[in-house]
Amino acid sequence: MKNPDANSAWAKDRDHVLHPYTDFTTFKEEGSQVIEGAKGMYVTDTEGRRLLDGIAGLWCVNVGHGRREMADAISEQVLKMQYYNPFGHSSNVPAAELGYWLASHAPGNLNHVYYTTGGSTANDAAIRLVHYYFTMKGQHRKKKIISRNDAYHGATYVAAELTGIQATKNSFDKVGEHFINHVSAANMYAKPDDMSEDAYCDFLVAEFENRIQQLGPDNCAAFIAEPIMGAGGVLVAPKGYHRRMWEVCKRHDMLYIADEVVTAFGRLGEWFASEALFDYQPDILVSAKGVTSGYIPLGITMISDEIYEVISRPQCEGGVFSMGLTYFGHPVACTAALKNIEIIENEGLLQNARDVGAHFQQTAQALKELPIVGDVRGYGLMMAVDLVADKATKASFPVTTGMGGKVFKKCVESGVIVRPVGDRIVLSPPIIINKEECDTIVSTLESAIGNECG
Amino acid sequence: MKNPDANSAWAKDRDHVLHPYTDFTTFKEEGSQVIEGAKGMYVTDTEGRRLLDGIAGLWCVNVGHGRREMADAISEQVLKMQYYNPFGHSSNVPAAELGYWLASHAPGNLNHVYYTTGGSTANDAAIRLVHYYFTMKGQHRKKKIISRNDAYHGATYVAAELTGIQATKNSFDKVGEHFINHVSAANMYAKPDDMSEDAYCDFLVAEFENRIQQLGPDNCAAFIAEPIMGAGGVLVAPKGYHRRMWEVCKRHDMLYIADEVVTAFGRLGEWFASEALFDYQPDILVSAKGVTSGYIPLGITMISDEIYEVISRPQCEGGVFSMGLTYFGHPVACTAALKNIEIIENEGLLQNARDVGAHFQQTAQALKELPIVGDVRGYGLMMAVDLVADKATKASFPVTTGMGGKVFKKCVESGVIVRPVGDRIVLSPPIIINKEECDTIVSTLESAIGNECG
Repeated sequence: MKNPDANSAWAKDRDHVLHPYTDFTTFKEEGSQVIEGAKGMYVTDTEGRRLLDGIAGLWCVNVGHGRREMADAISEQVLKMQYYNPFGHSSNVPAAELGYWLASHAPGNLNHVYYTTGGSTANDAAIRLVHYYFTMKGQHRKKKIISRNDAYHGATYVAAELTGIQATKNSFDKVGEHFINHVSAANMYAKPDDMSEDAYCDFLVAEFENRIQQLGPDNCAAFIAEPIMGAGGVLVAPKGYHRRMWEVCKRHDMLYIADEVVTAFGRLGEWFASEALFDYQPDILVSAKGVTSGYIPLGITMISDEIYEVISRPQCEGGVFSMGLTYFGHPVACTAALKNIEIIENEGLLQNARDVGAHFQQTAQALKELPIVGDVRGYGLMMAVDLVADKATKASFPVTTGMGGKVFKKCVESGVIVRPVGDRIVLSPPIIINKEECDTIVSTLESAIGNECG
Repeated sequence: MKNPDANSAWAKDRDHVLHPYTDFTTFKEEGSQVIEGAKGMYVTDTEGRRLLDGIAGLWCVNVGHGRREMADAISEQVLKMQYYNPFGHSSNVPAAELGYWLASHAPGNLNHVYYTTGGSTANDAAIRLVHYYFTMKGQHRKKKIISRNDAYHGATYVAAELTGIQATKNSFDKVGEHFINHVSAANMYAKPDDMSEDAYCDFLVAEFENRIQQLGPDNCAAFIAEPIMGAGGVLVAPKGYHRRMWEVCKRHDMLYIADEVVTAFGRLGEWFASEALFDYQPDILVSAKGVTSGYIPLGITMISDEIYEVISRPQCEGGVFSMGLTYFGHPVACTAALKNIEIIENEGLLQNARDVGAHFQQTAQALKELPIVGDVRGYGLMMAVDLVADKATKASFPVTTGMGGKVFKKCVESGVIVRPVGDRIVLSPPIIINKEECDTIVSTLESAIGNECG
């Protein structure tokens, strides 16, 4: 037991907080590592350990921790106008200013923003909007959503159903089986070795087309996909994949929903990745995390002019668009977003993410030399390292080995935080990171993995 | 057009924000009233109008607007530790401290808190938790949720399905028809005049019991109810109703979910209303809004020791409780909650809500004298005034009359914000309100309604 004092944050947390993604058998003994300080690239726990944050909190602290400009902007907005009803004909200045910035910078004509409190609610809202849109168009059967295996789209009931990572679904119920379908992930590491990248892309596009035919194009409303899969393993799709999936959508009058919760606001060196890096124009773009660097919860669901035109018609005499959260367009959250964006601009952090990201990806390729590293992949400041029992067959370690957890612990002991997702190590540092800090992450990981290679 | 300057917040809002609960036919012309300042009981718009806030933002700004202590506490936490990953064995000090406070003050053994970003996500999580709980107990068919007509439970897809206000559902799809049912609201105003309160309560309890028998008690998992219905019309149930509904739940091994998003944290003069005012012990208690007075988005889903004991078993070897939002236990939100609670304690705001609330309810009864006021009801600092075309028959005005909207506009012209929900005026001022400010709200409303009585 780390801290037997019943009055410690550690004990209060263990006894009263129902932790996400926790194995309670060990939790009830070990409790949590309680983080109490955070500054720049580092966080500090209650035992005084200072750790380089290789995961930006949880893919989100893009501008780094504990920034004075963020604290000041947030505090100023709290004093000036911390909250007022956003329903009906009522708004606030930061929500309006952020809406304008987003419309000016999002790809194509994604000119309208629906605000939520994070990625889950933004994806959940996207699905309700899609259904509402096709109903308003009189296409009452066009409601099915196609997602992908290994996708992560959040934790509301419907967002969890969109998610394709099976391990997150153990013992939970399903709520949208009648309208949510999954096709294969675009997983280059799982691709058969004797299949070319182009042939693999053909296979994925054909599977999608076949699924649409099976369900009936008139029943298919939208496809939802992350430009690069995040929690599912930082999976970078084969060249041309997104553009071709988008073309299939357009052919069948389906909407393309880009889940850019992780990939937007600099993680890949761009404000938004879909058009800039993958050459397609989503009809709906969802983001969260990096939009405020996680300082205050915020999610955004951006829709095209075409969708807005349909949605903004009343359904009936005096009808209103009756969907909204209390914290829609929260002025403190929108202020945090505006200041965060200003920091990214002023400090040239998009360019930094490109430069340092390229260095990071290149340096980390050395990890492939290690006997238990099956793959190292990613783009920009997003990376995954797969640990495998057999490089040739790509065979996993037995679950009981807990290899990912072992490597994680070793890294923490050496002062660096990485994130184990099973036996995959995921990295997503703040985008203020420099090359030396990247090198520290890679060399720490190299030692930690090397240590397990016997 | 209020402000033709394309660079104004008004224009940016109109052009780029997809507003909740908005009639876009008028919105595209009129746009929003943009609130840019807020202090204590007042908010100020961009045209310099200062308005007494009779609705606490949206049932939430309990400690009043723009407080320096809140700004300071929030700013300090942002600088100290603004965010870190809450998944796995990882936590932060404010989340732990708030968890402890909540467990110490919530009724019964609601000792464990799951954090979300607002009421919608907290209710959505409650339903996932209920399903998970019964699956873990091996009761795989016990999944149906019974809600009530006119209930409001939020705007995620599933929370919207729990909601029983039909007007919010126009043109939206249904997602949980197979497991979500609704029984009658406990609506004393709609009760037939020749039926006693006791007989009406018997009727509601019998209807609930019958519905359970119809669905099969083995299939019924939980009942969800607001202690006093909020958006549905500030409906105060007949005496003994909640206790008796709770007893029915217990008889059938069903969980009782108290949705205290509006009623907790002082609105009714108590931290939590269910046990203190209505004498039942929920198995799950959901709250949001008043927990931070809306300064930072936060929701809580509290569960009993019995539920925790079942949920905290792994589902399989190495299984984790795989459900959580990025902003679970957000340290800035939890700090806002702790400071908000401290203010409520230090300033005796629960007692103030009781005293001033009683005065408010009593004074407002005078509105019943007006020829178009059908009912005035509420408790504490929660009130509804029903506007009707005929008091004897309780007949509504034609929708096109827009009576609620007219009264709202008149009140705003007189410097007081009230909230029209159709032809019902809803009031929920900050709990710092004094008797004179209550009198101002009531007299302003009296004039505004009187003005419409011809």
